[in-house]
Amino acid sequence: MARLFMFEKPLGMRDTLPNVYKAKRVLRETMMNEIERWGYEFIETPTLEYYETVGAASAILDQQLFKLLDREGHTLVLRPDMTAPIARLAASKLYTEGCPLRLAYAANVFRAQQREGGRPAEFEQVGVECIGDGTMNADAEVISLMISALKKVGLCQFTVAIGHIGYVNALFFDILGNEKRVQTLRRFLYEKNYVGYREHVKSLSLSSIDQDRLLQLLTLRGGEEAIDRAEELTQTEAGFKAVSELKQLWANLQKYGVTEEIKIDLSLISHMSYYTGVLFEVYAEKVGFLLGNGGRYDELLEKFQRSSPATGFSVRLDRLMEAIAERKREEKRTCIIFSQERFSEAFTLAKEKREQGEHVVLQHIAGVRDMDRYTAMFDEVNYLLGKAGKDEPSC
Amino acid sequence: MARLFMFEKPLGMRDTLPNVYKAKRVLRETMMNEIERWGYEFIETPTLEYYETVGAASAILDQQLFKLLDREGHTLVLRPDMTAPIARLAASKLYTEGCPLRLAYAANVFRAQQREGGRPAEFEQVGVECIGDGTMNADAEVISLMISALKKVGLCQFTVAIGHIGYVNALFFDILGNEKRVQTLRRFLYEKNYVGYREHVKSLSLSSIDQDRLLQLLTLRGGEEAIDRAEELTQTEAGFKAVSELKQLWANLQKYGVTEEIKIDLSLISHMSYYTGVLFEVYAEKVGFLLGNGGRYDELLEKFQRSSPATGFSVRLDRLMEAIAERKREEKRTCIIFSQERFSEAFTLAKEKREQGEHVVLQHIAGVRDMDRYTAMFDEVNYLLGKAGKDEPSC
Repeated sequence: MARLFMFEKPLGMRDTLPNVYKAKRVLRETMMNEIERWGYEFIETPTLEYYETVGAASAILDQQLFKLLDREGHTLVLRPDMTAPIARLAASKLYTEGCPLRLAYAANVFRAQQREGGRPAEFEQVGVECIGDGTMNADAEVISLMISALKKVGLCQFTVAIGHIGYVNALFFDILGNEKRVQTLRRFLYEKNYVGYREHVKSLSLSSIDQDRLLQLLTLRGGEEAIDRAEELTQTEAGFKAVSELKQLWANLQKYGVTEEIKIDLSLISHMSYYTGVLFEVYAEKVGFLLGNGGRYDELLEKFQRSSPATGFSVRLDRLMEAIAERKREEKRTCIIFSQERFSEAFTLAKEKREQGEHVVLQHIAGVRDMDRYTAMFDEVNYLLGKAGKDEPSC
Repeated sequence: MARLFMFEKPLGMRDTLPNVYKAKRVLRETMMNEIERWGYEFIETPTLEYYETVGAASAILDQQLFKLLDREGHTLVLRPDMTAPIARLAASKLYTEGCPLRLAYAANVFRAQQREGGRPAEFEQVGVECIGDGTMNADAEVISLMISALKKVGLCQFTVAIGHIGYVNALFFDILGNEKRVQTLRRFLYEKNYVGYREHVKSLSLSSIDQDRLLQLLTLRGGEEAIDRAEELTQTEAGFKAVSELKQLWANLQKYGVTEEIKIDLSLISHMSYYTGVLFEVYAEKVGFLLGNGGRYDELLEKFQRSSPATGFSVRLDRLMEAIAERKREEKRTCIIFSQERFSEAFTLAKEKREQGEHVVLQHIAGVRDMDRYTAMFDEVNYLLGKAGKDEPSC
């Protein structure tokens, strides 16, 4: 075991320095304000949860969980997502049968990483959960709210891909019959390995008609007409139910005026295994990476002994930061360098400027050794010093 | 090992529900804004740090640390305070020799608790660190900033008790000679067990003059005159240096106009073992508990291979919440209940209200089963429904 340097941080752990912190805070606040305007209420849950309860309900791979033992021998986890903790909280306390609950969060989640220089092991998500409303309007609302919040923070080009896990499962089970074969195909889609998917389909001992139907799934992408094509392809009740839900969703999204950002993609599969219906992912077009995702999870609350439909989204703040062009630092930073005898004068000046909202450092000259270097960090520097040439008393 | 209920949370872990969340957010933002106006810049550090580096530099007892192992066999800790991580960060990156650095944080820290129903194991601290300025003005600044921030959030009656660990150590070593005897006496002060302190002093084989001097330490409380009495009691260079620092501090605090909230208390000892000079605690008078503390720690950065004076404070947000009388919920919550055919109308109304900053829930009637119970949660409810008596289509 190598000895650590004093400055090292655990794998995937990062510091956030002032300029990034400021930009992140503006993003977070802007998203939070929009989410609150839609009537969602923010809550906070503990960083540590029991592995046996919330850890098991989460959809994150076991090897990605940070685990520790408590004194009683129970395994604790650093929360890997916020949906499972909110399901615990909603099931235990807040949710009154039949009364939809709108909750939101801005919180760090934790996922252990394998390699140095790889993905962050701790990152912030902003998201909402709408619990208790099984209508397609709830799905339309969370998608529209996500789009509205992303526009508020100034994200210009992005796409929300919408799929339906119920549709995919219905088609796969209809053709393949058993869960194991379904899982294999789903995995290709989840990995967006479409070449692998095609080759695997061709290797299956199926009629050419069924092979063709499986291949056609990859073409069910586009606008509203993709839903019509999906309807033609399905032959099961579960498939038709999914199509009907997508049609209702599309109609609602039209009324919300957000279909311009939407792309239907029925080959979409999420890594979140708890989704049961409509699911979606949001991509920044310029950078091409996943900013967030969401979907309906009507069976998760059952794990907390309470049955309820639910839907939600989460957006990663770190990726959103990267997707948005760097903002200019908005506030001016002023420094007042003073000597002891002129402190009262300096403090009065600082107070005036602070009351006007300026950010003002008040610095005793004896506390600075490298004046040029120090003052270079400010937009404006005021000197309130005693007689020139006289040494300042160190005080 | 008892089986867990699905709703259970680890010992000392708590959920924060909407109303408390809102009040906490207002407090945090108000404090942050004031701290920023004084030119401090906020940063964030990882929740997990290496035990070997930051964990060891922290002043929190080992049994209070949450520990886990990483893949390489290193022990990680959930940060128990923010001062040590900021010292790591400042030493590694930000601090340029001789240029004071003003950093701030609003972050959760973690301290394992022993009993159910006891103290929280995760709580938020808001604080600042002024690194690189060894003048007494830096100490006066952090104390004044703390007082200013507490006043901004509406805390009315509070006291800042100020001591000096250098003064106490000088007196104790002068009289007692060795570290072990000094430690025992310091422990009584740290536990605020003044009866135990007196009894222990009387049991020591010392001259009655020296016993009397140790007992007089407990009377060095009050305003500026307490510093003068402290000067009479000390006989060592280190003691006189401490008195001189306290005098300079007091003069600066007078200029900041905050001496009304200050009480000198030379028997004050903090649980933070890294303090080297002036230290302080802030109490809410009504509730009588500790809201925060701070002090000078001129040797902590050496642990990160960089020598620099430093001072700072931290305030616990949970305790501040308790100390401040409950705030009224400020914003009105409106709900618009709509049926599918009137959705566009409902959305337009919601949009208008949201643009004016109102918090508006838009709820499809088919998503609510218990209408009376649901609508009771809002200040205003608007119904936009189809023909009376007609069933709403579930959509």
